[in-house]
Amino acid sequence: MRIAELSKLSGVPVPTIKYYLREGLLTAGELSSPNQASYNEIHLRRLRLIRALLEVGGLSVAAIRDVLAAVDEPDLSMWKLLGVVSDSLQKHETIADDEEWRRARATVEALLLSRGWIDHDSFWPPAANTLTMVALRLSQLGYESFVSEALTTYLDAAEKVADLDVDYVLRFPDREDVVDGVVVLTVLGEAALSAARLIAHRHVSATKLGIPAPQAD
Amino acid sequence: MRIAELSKLSGVPVPTIKYYLREGLLTAGELSSPNQASYNEIHLRRLRLIRALLEVGGLSVAAIRDVLAAVDEPDLSMWKLLGVVSDSLQKHETIADDEEWRRARATVEALLLSRGWIDHDSFWPPAANTLTMVALRLSQLGYESFVSEALTTYLDAAEKVADLDVDYVLRFPDREDVVDGVVVLTVLGEAALSAARLIAHRHVSATKLGIPAPQAD
Repeated sequence: MRIAELSKLSGVPVPTIKYYLREGLLTAGELSSPNQASYNEIHLRRLRLIRALLEVGGLSVAAIRDVLAAVDEPDLSMWKLLGVVSDSLQKHETIADDEEWRRARATVEALLLSRGWIDHDSFWPPAANTLTMVALRLSQLGYESFVSEALTTYLDAAEKVADLDVDYVLRFPDREDVVDGVVVLTVLGEAALSAARLIAHRHVSATKLGIPAPQAD
Repeated sequence: MRIAELSKLSGVPVPTIKYYLREGLLTAGELSSPNQASYNEIHLRRLRLIRALLEVGGLSVAAIRDVLAAVDEPDLSMWKLLGVVSDSLQKHETIADDEEWRRARATVEALLLSRGWIDHDSFWPPAANTLTMVALRLSQLGYESFVSEALTTYLDAAEKVADLDVDYVLRFPDREDVVDGVVVLTVLGEAALSAARLIAHRHVSATKLGIPAPQAD
């Protein structure tokens, strides 16, 4: 197909496609005449993935290039590929590294170790710093007991959801589709889980306060 | 105590305290002399709540004033008070209200009805619009099956966490502490749950891909 049709099918404007071509995110089409290139299903699928990384994942063009390079590296295992994608989506928390931070980090580390989510010498995931930051803020605000009492339930809930997410994306036979799934489900799944928790708060407190659920205001 | 000591104990600078006094967020101290006011524990606790609403909840001064008015209204039931606080913390999604939106909304509504989280005539929580937006985006991106297969598990997980959150805050005897708890746990709990899910993704995929967990890169 010509670039105009690729644009129509993908919903991506022609100038944007040309920009992706220049930036090397999209491989050049096959030249059918000296100034006409032909594109195929592979380009269409790649465009879909670029849009997911850009619009859903919020990645920069440089970060997208790195993810696509990992997708296209056949010797890179699925496990490593998932690591690259997941890392690119995670917020890298600024570490305070004072006494207070180290205490919160030790609490989080003990919790993750006890579940077998990390081991002593292993990689410390960026999100574990976010969890440390949360534990630290909770303690500062007087909710230290919430950290010790509640975090386990949070991790249980997160694990159930993560199990489903991973099952869902690993069923795709194609690496590109797995990556697309990881990006979309990581970001939109997070929004879904947060929203569901807020709705559940309402329902649960109605029950506990003896309000005839699901009654309204 | 004098304003200087209130500032020291609360960690809030004197000019900021004066600003809260002018804005009516904090009630005036008792005049001990024509130009000297005296503050007490009630002021200290109120300052703590204002900081939580402002810094953790991200509320505007106007929104804080509304929440504090609800706290101080003794005839307002705990159920209504929780509604005011929760509402002030929620993002109010822009509704598209086209055919696609209505379809996604119907899916979410059916799901929430089946769990007894809402009923037919009742209040539609703001977060249900966020959930609708997520369902819509998932469908547009080709993940309609995720909505039908996975959302139930998300709601289950959210309910377990919400149950714990509500138990935790309702144990406080004081309305002001309940509100403080709702703000802090809503916001920081959300960050904790999201971070836990990302860490769990790593652990779960290692297991499913046969990587000797919890090994690293």
